[in-house]
Amino acid sequence: MTRHSDPTQVQLTADGRLKHFLTTEGLSKALLTEILDLADSFISTQERAVKKVPLLRGKTVVNLFFENSTRTRSTFELAAKRLSADILNLDIASSATSKGETLMDTLWNLEAMYSDMFVVRHADSGAAHFIAEQVTPGVAIINAGDGRHAHPTQAMLDMLTIRRHKGAIEGQTVAIVGDILHSRVARSQIHALKTLGAKEIRVIGPATLIPKEMKDLGANIYFDMEQGLADVDVIIMLRLQKERMSDALLPSEGEYFKLYGLTEAKLALAKPDAIVMHPGPINRGVEIDSAVADGAQSVILNQVSYGIAVRMAVMAMAMSGQVAEQQALIAKGITA
Amino acid sequence: MTRHSDPTQVQLTADGRLKHFLTTEGLSKALLTEILDLADSFISTQERAVKKVPLLRGKTVVNLFFENSTRTRSTFELAAKRLSADILNLDIASSATSKGETLMDTLWNLEAMYSDMFVVRHADSGAAHFIAEQVTPGVAIINAGDGRHAHPTQAMLDMLTIRRHKGAIEGQTVAIVGDILHSRVARSQIHALKTLGAKEIRVIGPATLIPKEMKDLGANIYFDMEQGLADVDVIIMLRLQKERMSDALLPSEGEYFKLYGLTEAKLALAKPDAIVMHPGPINRGVEIDSAVADGAQSVILNQVSYGIAVRMAVMAMAMSGQVAEQQALIAKGITA
Amino acid sequence: MTRHSDPTQVQLTADGRLKHFLTTEGLSKALLTEILDLADSFISTQERAVKKVPLLRGKTVVNLFFENSTRTRSTFELAAKRLSADILNLDIASSATSKGETLMDTLWNLEAMYSDMFVVRHADSGAAHFIAEQVTPGVAIINAGDGRHAHPTQAMLDMLTIRRHKGAIEGQTVAIVGDILHSRVARSQIHALKTLGAKEIRVIGPATLIPKEMKDLGANIYFDMEQGLADVDVIIMLRLQKERMSDALLPSEGEYFKLYGLTEAKLALAKPDAIVMHPGPINRGVEIDSAVADGAQSVILNQVSYGIAVRMAVMAMAMSGQVAEQQALIAKGITA
Repeated sequence: MTRHSDPTQVQLTADGRLKHFLTTEGLSKALLTEILDLADSFISTQERAVKKVPLLRGKTVVNLFFENSTRTRSTFELAAKRLSADILNLDIASSATSKGETLMDTLWNLEAMYSDMFVVRHADSGAAHFIAEQVTPGVAIINAGDGRHAHPTQAMLDMLTIRRHKGAIEGQTVAIVGDILHSRVARSQIHALKTLGAKEIRVIGPATLIPKEMKDLGANIYFDMEQGLADVDVIIMLRLQKERMSDALLPSEGEYFKLYGLTEAKLALAKPDAIVMHPGPINRGVEIDSAVADGAQSVILNQVSYGIAVRMAVMAMAMSGQVAEQQALIAKGITA
Repeated sequence: MTRHSDPTQVQLTADGRLKHFLTTEGLSKALLTEILDLADSFISTQERAVKKVPLLRGKTVVNLFFENSTRTRSTFELAAKRLSADILNLDIASSATSKGETLMDTLWNLEAMYSDMFVVRHADSGAAHFIAEQVTPGVAIINAGDGRHAHPTQAMLDMLTIRRHKGAIEGQTVAIVGDILHSRVARSQIHALKTLGAKEIRVIGPATLIPKEMKDLGANIYFDMEQGLADVDVIIMLRLQKERMSDALLPSEGEYFKLYGLTEAKLALAKPDAIVMHPGPINRGVEIDSAVADGAQSVILNQVSYGIAVRMAVMAMAMSGQVAEQQALIAKGITA
Repeated sequence: MTRHSDPTQVQLTADGRLKHFLTTEGLSKALLTEILDLADSFISTQERAVKKVPLLRGKTVVNLFFENSTRTRSTFELAAKRLSADILNLDIASSATSKGETLMDTLWNLEAMYSDMFVVRHADSGAAHFIAEQVTPGVAIINAGDGRHAHPTQAMLDMLTIRRHKGAIEGQTVAIVGDILHSRVARSQIHALKTLGAKEIRVIGPATLIPKEMKDLGANIYFDMEQGLADVDVIIMLRLQKERMSDALLPSEGEYFKLYGLTEAKLALAKPDAIVMHPGPINRGVEIDSAVADGAQSVILNQVSYGIAVRMAVMAMAMSGQVAEQQALIAKGITA
C-alpha cells in the first residue's frame, strides 16, 4: 500500500461531486456543508413512523471489516437499511476462507458479485484510499476508520453535532482532549473544523500522546488541561485506546484521569454553555466522569443519532456521484 | 438491577394495552386471549405464498442477546422480518466492543440509533424488566428469556398450542414435567394457565428440582411421574438444562430417564387424547423417548410453528401500544 | 445417511421440472439449458440500477451451513436477496444450541418455522440428497457443496462461463486440472459437460489425486500436464484443498506448482483462444501463476459474476417447481 495519489482527488468526480468518502482533508466548505445539510434531512426521516427512504433501493452495500468493530458496523448496517439497500456483512478478520487470499483478490471477487459500495474498516492507515484507487469504476468506497489516519464519518457527525447545538461551526473554540496519537478521528476533525471556519482548535493531552505535526495542522497544543479548557465552546473527549498503547506511554489510568479526565470541576473552566462530546464507547472514570457524561452539557447520545444520519448522507452522495460519473462516461462514449 | 416496580404495570399503557412483553404474570385473561387471537391470524398469513405483513415496516428491531441462543434468536428474526421490520442482530455475549461498556450505555446508544424495539435475552432474572423501566418512551421491550424467571413468548406459544389442539385452555388438566428449578418457562406457563382457566396444574419432578413456591403459585406437586400423569389432558415436558446444573442434583441421565423420561408406557396413563409438548431442542432418550416425540400425540413441531406467530403477535401489539401512548402524550401536550 | 433413492428423481417433479437442485448428474440437456438461459437473464437484471426481482418475495430461505464457507454463503445470500427473499443465515458448525440435536430435529424445526428453501452445505457426501428425501413437500433443497460428491451450482456457473465465452459447450475440449480426488466440483462438471455436448473431457493431475472412476465417467486421464493441455479450448484449474489432504499425497507446494501449476508457458500449449477458469479463492503461485490468473485469457472473475446469476436461477426454478407440485396435489385432491 505505497503508491498513493491525492486522496481528495480520488474521492471526487471530474465536476467535484463526492464519489468516495475517504477523508475530510481537502474537501471544500461547500461540500462538507452539503453533507451536513443532507444529514440534517435524514434526522427528520428517521423521526417518522417509517424510517426508510428508497435512495439505495436495489443496491448492494458490503460492510468490509478487516478489523472488528460491532458498534461502527451496526451504524453503517442501519444506515444502509434505512436507505433501502441490501447489506452483506463480511467480517474478514475472522473469515477463514479469505485468509490465504490477497486483499485485491477479495475485492475483485466482491466487485464481481455486482457490489455497489464497500464500507471499509482496516487497521492500516490509507487502506480505504488504496482500495478506492483500485476499485472498478461505479463502486463507492466509504472509509469507516483506517489505522490512525482517518475516521471521516465520525468527524462529520461531530461537525453536525456542533452545528446543531452551537448554531454554527464558525467562530467556535474547540478543544480535543486525550490520546491524539492513537486517535483515528482527531486528524479528520481538525481538517473539518478548519475548513468549516472554527475560530480556534486546541489539542490537549500528555506530551507522549500528542504528535508534533498537530502544530502544522493549525492546532494549538496544551499539556495542561485547565489552561486548555479555558473559555472553550466545545470539548471533544477522545476514547482512551488502551488496546493500542503498546508500551508505557501513560503512568496509570488513575493518574491519567487525574490529569486529563473530564470532571465537573474542569468543565467549569469552559464557557457556561460549552458542550461535551465523546465518540463512544465511554470509559467512565477513565477519560470522563459519569456526572459529566450524563450531565446537562453532554451531547454524547445526540452524536450517536446524528451518526446514522451522516452515514446515510455520505452513502447517498457517493452512490449518486458514482452513478453520475458512469452516465457521463456513457454519454461521452455515445457522442464521441 | 435492584429497584423493581410492578412488572405488570410496566408492560401496560395507561389504558391497559400491551407496550412491552415481559411476563405473563398479572396480564388479564382478555389481554392473553387477544395475543392468542392475533397469533392465530398470523398462522394464516404465514401459510400464504407471500408470508409478510407490513405492520412493522420501517421499524428497527434489535435482537439484543446477552446470552447466546441461536434458536430463539432465529424465531424472533423471522417474526420481525415477516412483520417487514428491519432487524439488527447484536450478540453482546461475544462483542468485544461492548465489553467495557455498562448495560445502560449499550442501551442508550442503541436507543439513540432510533431503534423501536429490543428483543432481550439475558442470563439474569429481571433483566428485561429492568431494561423496560429504563428505556426511552416509545421503545418496546420483548423478553426472550431472563435467567430462571420468565420466558413469556414460549409460555404463550404453549397456550396457543393447547387452545388449537384441545379447543380451549379452560377445563384442562396440565402436567409440567422435569427440571422446574432451572426452567425459564415453567413459571410463565403456570401464570398463563391459571389466568386462562386451566382446571388443574401439576408439576412433576425430583424433589431437588421443584422449588417449594410452586405450591403457592397454585400447582400440585408430584414426585412420582406415574401418579402425576394419571388422566391429564396435556403433558408439557421441560428440557433438561444440563449446562445449568452445577452440582449433583441428579443421579445420572439414565436414572433420570427411568424416573421422569416420557415413554409410551407412561404416556398411556394420561387421557387417550392427551397431547405431548416440549419447548425444544429435545434430548432424545434423556427426557423423552423418540417413539413419543415422533408419535401421534406429539405436537412439538406445531409448537415451533405457533412460536413465530406468537412472537409476531406480541411484537405487533407492543409496537402498537407504544405508538398509541406516544400519540396520547402528544395530544395531551397540545390540549394542555 | 444410507438409504438413498435415485438423486435425479428426487430433484424433479412428476412432470420433469426442477424442485430441488442436488446434482447435475442425470439432468437432461433441456433442463441444464433452461438453467443457463434463466441465469443469462439474471445477469441482465443485475446490471440494472435496481438489481432485485420479486420472484421469491415473501419467501424464507435458510442458509444451512454445517461447514463454514463465507464465500459460498455470501453468494447465496446475495442471490436470495436479489430475488427479494428473506434470508436466515444459520451457521450450524458453530451453533452450540444445535450441537446436541440430531440433523433431522434441526430440519424439522426449521420446516416448522415455515421455511421455503434450505441452501445446504455439508462435509458429508450425499447430505443434501438425504435432506431432500426427508424434507416436507413444498420445501426446496439447494446443494451448496457436499463432501467430495457434488457442488452443482459451481459446475453450472462453469457451464455458463464456457457458453458465454466460447459460444457453446458443444464441441469444446475441456481440461480439468489438479486435485480431482478431493474436489467437490470435478464430478459435477464432468456430468454437465457430457450432457451439454463437450467434445472431449480431460482430467490432469498426479496419479495420487485422480480416482480411477474418472475413466468410467468418460474423461481421459493425463498425468502429464503438457500433454493434457495440448489444443484444449477450456482449462478449469481446481483449488488445491490443502486442508483436505491428510497424508503425504503430494511432495510439496513448490514441486506441485512445477508439475501442475498453470504458467504462461503451459498455457501456450492450449489453443490460442483458450479460456482459463478457477473456482476461487486462488492460491497464487501454488496452482496458478499470477500472470495467468490476471491475464487476458482468464475469465475467473466473470465466473464469480455468473455464480450469483446461476444461484438465482436454480433457486427460482426449484421454488417454482415446488409451488407447481403443491398446486397439482391440491387440484388432484379437489377432483378426486
